[in-house]
Amino acid sequence: MSDGPVLIVSAHAADFVWRAGGYAALAARRGAGAHVVCLSYGERGESAALWKSGATLEQVKAARRAEAEAAAKALGAQITFLDAGDYPLPRADAGLMDALVQRIRAVRPAAILVHSAADPYNADHPRAAELALEARILAQAEGYPSEHPIIGAPPVFRFEPHQPEMCGFQPDVLVDITEVFDVKRAAMECMNAQEHLWDYYTELARRRGVQAVRNGGDRAIRYAEAYQRVYPQVAGVLA
Amino acid sequence: MSDGPVLIVSAHAADFVWRAGGYAALAARRGAGAHVVCLSYGERGESAALWKSGATLEQVKAARRAEAEAAAKALGAQITFLDAGDYPLPRADAGLMDALVQRIRAVRPAAILVHSAADPYNADHPRAAELALEARILAQAEGYPSEHPIIGAPPVFRFEPHQPEMCGFQPDVLVDITEVFDVKRAAMECMNAQEHLWDYYTELARRRGVQAVRNGGDRAIRYAEAYQRVYPQVAGVLA
Amino acid sequence: MSDGPVLIVSAHAADFVWRAGGYAALAARRGAGAHVVCLSYGERGESAALWKSGATLEQVKAARRAEAEAAAKALGAQITFLDAGDYPLPRADAGLMDALVQRIRAVRPAAILVHSAADPYNADHPRAAELALEARILAQAEGYPSEHPIIGAPPVFRFEPHQPEMCGFQPDVLVDITEVFDVKRAAMECMNAQEHLWDYYTELARRRGVQAVRNGGDRAIRYAEAYQRVYPQVAGVLA
Amino acid sequence: MSDGPVLIVSAHAADFVWRAGGYAALAARRGAGAHVVCLSYGERGESAALWKSGATLEQVKAARRAEAEAAAKALGAQITFLDAGDYPLPRADAGLMDALVQRIRAVRPAAILVHSAADPYNADHPRAAELALEARILAQAEGYPSEHPIIGAPPVFRFEPHQPEMCGFQPDVLVDITEVFDVKRAAMECMNAQEHLWDYYTELARRRGVQAVRNGGDRAIRYAEAYQRVYPQVAGVLA
Amino acid sequence: MSDGPVLIVSAHAADFVWRAGGYAALAARRGAGAHVVCLSYGERGESAALWKSGATLEQVKAARRAEAEAAAKALGAQITFLDAGDYPLPRADAGLMDALVQRIRAVRPAAILVHSAADPYNADHPRAAELALEARILAQAEGYPSEHPIIGAPPVFRFEPHQPEMCGFQPDVLVDITEVFDVKRAAMECMNAQEHLWDYYTELARRRGVQAVRNGGDRAIRYAEAYQRVYPQVAGVLA
Amino acid sequence: MSDGPVLIVSAHAADFVWRAGGYAALAARRGAGAHVVCLSYGERGESAALWKSGATLEQVKAARRAEAEAAAKALGAQITFLDAGDYPLPRADAGLMDALVQRIRAVRPAAILVHSAADPYNADHPRAAELALEARILAQAEGYPSEHPIIGAPPVFRFEPHQPEMCGFQPDVLVDITEVFDVKRAAMECMNAQEHLWDYYTELARRRGVQAVRNGGDRAIRYAEAYQRVYPQVAGVLA
Repeated sequence: MSDGPVLIVSAHAADFVWRAGGYAALAARRGAGAHVVCLSYGERGESAALWKSGATLEQVKAARRAEAEAAAKALGAQITFLDAGDYPLPRADAGLMDALVQRIRAVRPAAILVHSAADPYNADHPRAAELALEARILAQAEGYPSEHPIIGAPPVFRFEPHQPEMCGFQPDVLVDITEVFDVKRAAMECMNAQEHLWDYYTELARRRGVQAVRNGGDRAIRYAEAYQRVYPQVAGVLA
Repeated sequence: MSDGPVLIVSAHAADFVWRAGGYAALAARRGAGAHVVCLSYGERGESAALWKSGATLEQVKAARRAEAEAAAKALGAQITFLDAGDYPLPRADAGLMDALVQRIRAVRPAAILVHSAADPYNADHPRAAELALEARILAQAEGYPSEHPIIGAPPVFRFEPHQPEMCGFQPDVLVDITEVFDVKRAAMECMNAQEHLWDYYTELARRRGVQAVRNGGDRAIRYAEAYQRVYPQVAGVLA
Repeated sequence: MSDGPVLIVSAHAADFVWRAGGYAALAARRGAGAHVVCLSYGERGESAALWKSGATLEQVKAARRAEAEAAAKALGAQITFLDAGDYPLPRADAGLMDALVQRIRAVRPAAILVHSAADPYNADHPRAAELALEARILAQAEGYPSEHPIIGAPPVFRFEPHQPEMCGFQPDVLVDITEVFDVKRAAMECMNAQEHLWDYYTELARRRGVQAVRNGGDRAIRYAEAYQRVYPQVAGVLA
Repeated sequence: MSDGPVLIVSAHAADFVWRAGGYAALAARRGAGAHVVCLSYGERGESAALWKSGATLEQVKAARRAEAEAAAKALGAQITFLDAGDYPLPRADAGLMDALVQRIRAVRPAAILVHSAADPYNADHPRAAELALEARILAQAEGYPSEHPIIGAPPVFRFEPHQPEMCGFQPDVLVDITEVFDVKRAAMECMNAQEHLWDYYTELARRRGVQAVRNGGDRAIRYAEAYQRVYPQVAGVLA
Repeated sequence: MSDGPVLIVSAHAADFVWRAGGYAALAARRGAGAHVVCLSYGERGESAALWKSGATLEQVKAARRAEAEAAAKALGAQITFLDAGDYPLPRADAGLMDALVQRIRAVRPAAILVHSAADPYNADHPRAAELALEARILAQAEGYPSEHPIIGAPPVFRFEPHQPEMCGFQPDVLVDITEVFDVKRAAMECMNAQEHLWDYYTELARRRGVQAVRNGGDRAIRYAEAYQRVYPQVAGVLA
Repeated sequence: MSDGPVLIVSAHAADFVWRAGGYAALAARRGAGAHVVCLSYGERGESAALWKSGATLEQVKAARRAEAEAAAKALGAQITFLDAGDYPLPRADAGLMDALVQRIRAVRPAAILVHSAADPYNADHPRAAELALEARILAQAEGYPSEHPIIGAPPVFRFEPHQPEMCGFQPDVLVDITEVFDVKRAAMECMNAQEHLWDYYTELARRRGVQAVRNGGDRAIRYAEAYQRVYPQVAGVLA
């Protein structure tokens, strides 16, 4: 399963950078490929500075899109925007669901990365995860209409939310991102209005790196990202 | 972490065979080595047939030991007996704890396999897991007296209990044991008095094999064992 | 509460057979009656073989309906199809909800059987359960418009999902289905394209039978089905 | 945060009286202000006596509204009715969500009180809580269109459901309502058709009062209400 | 399983009266028999009034024993005192465990009633439950030395703690005790120093009675006790 | 409850500094008083550098004691050492339990601070918490022998473990420690061998400070500590 591309489903334009940018860069670097789907631009919920500066809705969306495109480019990832609207992200929009299913079928990901199952600070995040998980199931069904063939059963990983202890997030996997951390940092710096987060997520990566070593990882690990599994792993060796 | 031996902590003489025999055989076959520690012989709690036949305590223990040794040999595993007594397995026996710590330090396992965290049908099982988890922590401490050096942080996996849905067991890893299943079956058949379990655990391995395929594993998988992680995995690729 | 009929709410055409067919047969045999409501035919999500053979949507639905009717007949159960569509089953369809409420009022069940609360492999299953639980509540309200009178508070039981340990399913009740197991097997055999499941669910029934004996049931039990309660039981004797 | 008004989001017309009437009266008495938003009148689900007496839908709604207005007046609270319909309360009604967001922005509450996260006896209750929690998040966003400015991060408390042990409700805060209990009782007595509940909730307040004393509260506490926090408290002293 | 006696394992002298007195009276009345085992007299932890009056340890124990004997007599139950000491109840006392095992084997209960799994207000309560559950397992083992034969697998029920919502107690069974409530009340009144609890537990029995009706029980139920199952029920009819 | 001293129960010599040093300093500064009880010196489990340097057991204990005394002095706290031994901390040592009870009775704390309920990296931590919780209950009992009078029901708070998301730690209270952070930093710097932790816990305090602001706290908060409640809070205002 590990040779194909990774697909990252992001509720808003910037989520994938902070939470899964390292893994996207790793996948790009080893040639597997990284694809990001942004369900919305985060135009209402995560663009306070732009609104305060007097931007219109279209200007906000364009600005967030430009940043996200720059960040994806820095990571070496492809990016698609579904523009479904945020705050609230629609819960039961047949068009959005179908677009997501078709995207999953087209990409044929080796792994899918989604938001956490709960987030008391942002209702769009768990909803995006729920949509992605259901879309993956629909993409497995022969009877779901599509020009693309069905997919198999790629593993799904939840990326780390901003406040893991409030979101039921418990890390199952710590991924070494040391070799691409400079790339992740560069992608984060594409998010102009959120400078305080550059250091926050650098520090988080460092802490996860320490935990990786503490949990038996290579002593050379300096930066890591945490992920939570949705399905059991299939493995040959317990390690 | 995956090159060293596996250490399996078994409350009673036969537990390791049914629950982790496949992985023991795999580790033995690839040359990593498999070590089993039986905390007790299961002389009181899991030897009903022998008691009914009129055996004495010493006879029961000798019989269970012989079976376990034969099964370990079939799997290619080394086995140690701590003879701490069962039903109940002692909760706070300093000698038992120390013996377990020293064994862990001596083996320097790449992975440790333990019982589930709960079992309403057998209080010895979760207690053995608790002892093993604490012994691993003590084995990591510079200040714990021993002739052996401290160990690192080997990952710990819970093996599948008899009734997983009653024991809080949720599989995190499915290990393909197809290539050694005949060896596991042979080891199970060393347990003379429990013929009905031979087929039960063969059938379970088959079901776990089907689930492994359904969760994205190779289509050639026919038999598998399920494990639950205690600590986060450190990985390079999400798969 | 135990004299009236049982109502089984099935997301797709075949779910009721594998998961609650034994209890349906028992209820039919003792004259209480068994009613099945299929919310969809499972035309998209659970009919892979038919799609691969080139069937059209209408042909798939007709084929699944015919099988489900045959299985219900074998069990001695009545069956109703709401044809709400699957993959995804609609979450907030007022017409579907009302049809379900009216059906519950018309049947006046002594017990209602529903899917598990979670299922990471099939989003329709927990959604069908949620719909059934809410419809039962609406059916209890004097103010809900209907030609039928309100119902009381029939107990609700979740039937066993395919992978109980992944779905938060913990058995609260084991029902002896030994005397009707041949009928359940006959019903399962109406599902032509799923021969591998015939043996799987036969084996599951056998394991649940063993557990029933192990949990204090009659030693003559050979087959059982597992259920999880949603509401407290009202009883005269603790047994 | 404690100087401003409290906002209570009630699924049906009477919920706020039984569950949070004491706190509403306290807030009114100390001049902070209490605002109630009733999402529906509870016309279908909680008005059995009126339906049995032959009232029409409009008569039921008018009657429930009159009672709720009288109770709010007794408590010293302002009340708003959104008339979104009950049994079922709509899950994804954009107009309802917006009305709730605007109300939260207009009131600028120091605390928001909502239903429990689960209730197997009433699906409207957890749904009302989910709506209120999401509306609060939307009310915090600069980009959400409104004539009112954004709000800060007022704490949210779940009030006690009718059967706490079935609804995942665990009390985090016990509020002394001794000084206003007569006012709460008077408000409860505005609910004409539910006399049996007057004593039930008087008795509950007494039990919660005893628990408050047992958990270190002032020995003079005689009546209390229980609440569950959604977010961490920010405090200067641990008490 | 329902024809034999019930065995109630009580941490302190009075626990069985408040929490399971109704069921004890029912079992006595229908001739099945009720046996109580008090692990301690509650001499330190639940006898504040006696200590304040200047009683010695032996006087406290004698007083609590006399009350418990009177209450048991009122209920029609037999009672045994193991005098293991309370506050703290010993966790790993081999003599206590053996006494409990032998008592279970001697009584051969059709059901065993134990404390809740957690209680942040009283550490003896969950410890008594843990001891009872393990003793039942030991009593099932052929190899455990005893003059009595092994027992089967009697169901185990947790009785309701004083603050269920703080103790992880969720009712699975509501038992109608209407016909014996006067007997339970008489037994409660044997507890001289705890008059305030007489009314508290009368009121609790009334509330559980209302819930029994609300959950589908007979409309004539006026008093009930709540219980939580440890093991799955084996049943013929889902009701 | 908030005027009296705080009592902090620390498994090892340094735990109280990293996890609750800020609150100790606050309590000291406002004159309420701070008392620390160290159950062990952490001589085996948390003194790797000393062991590597060739120190003897007594030297290690003396060194840890000196550091802890210096840190307590910096915080303005009194400190007591029970020297019960670590790795493992004894689970059922009657002398240790009694010493803890007597200490609690002597101090009469307004609040008690303890470790988290779980910690897969350190078995002593949850065990110390369990001991402290039980000792508090014993200290409340009239019948427990002591020269000191019984205590009331001081609230208990769990302080933050090193890896909260692995230890079931979810913050319920964020305490502003901005005004004493320099004191906490000075106390941390008494721990000579653990320089890397000085910055780690400075950074953690900063993150918790940001969360406090995000959860409605004063915008001037720069440093905070997180705590989890064991018992419900008794409050007059929901804030």
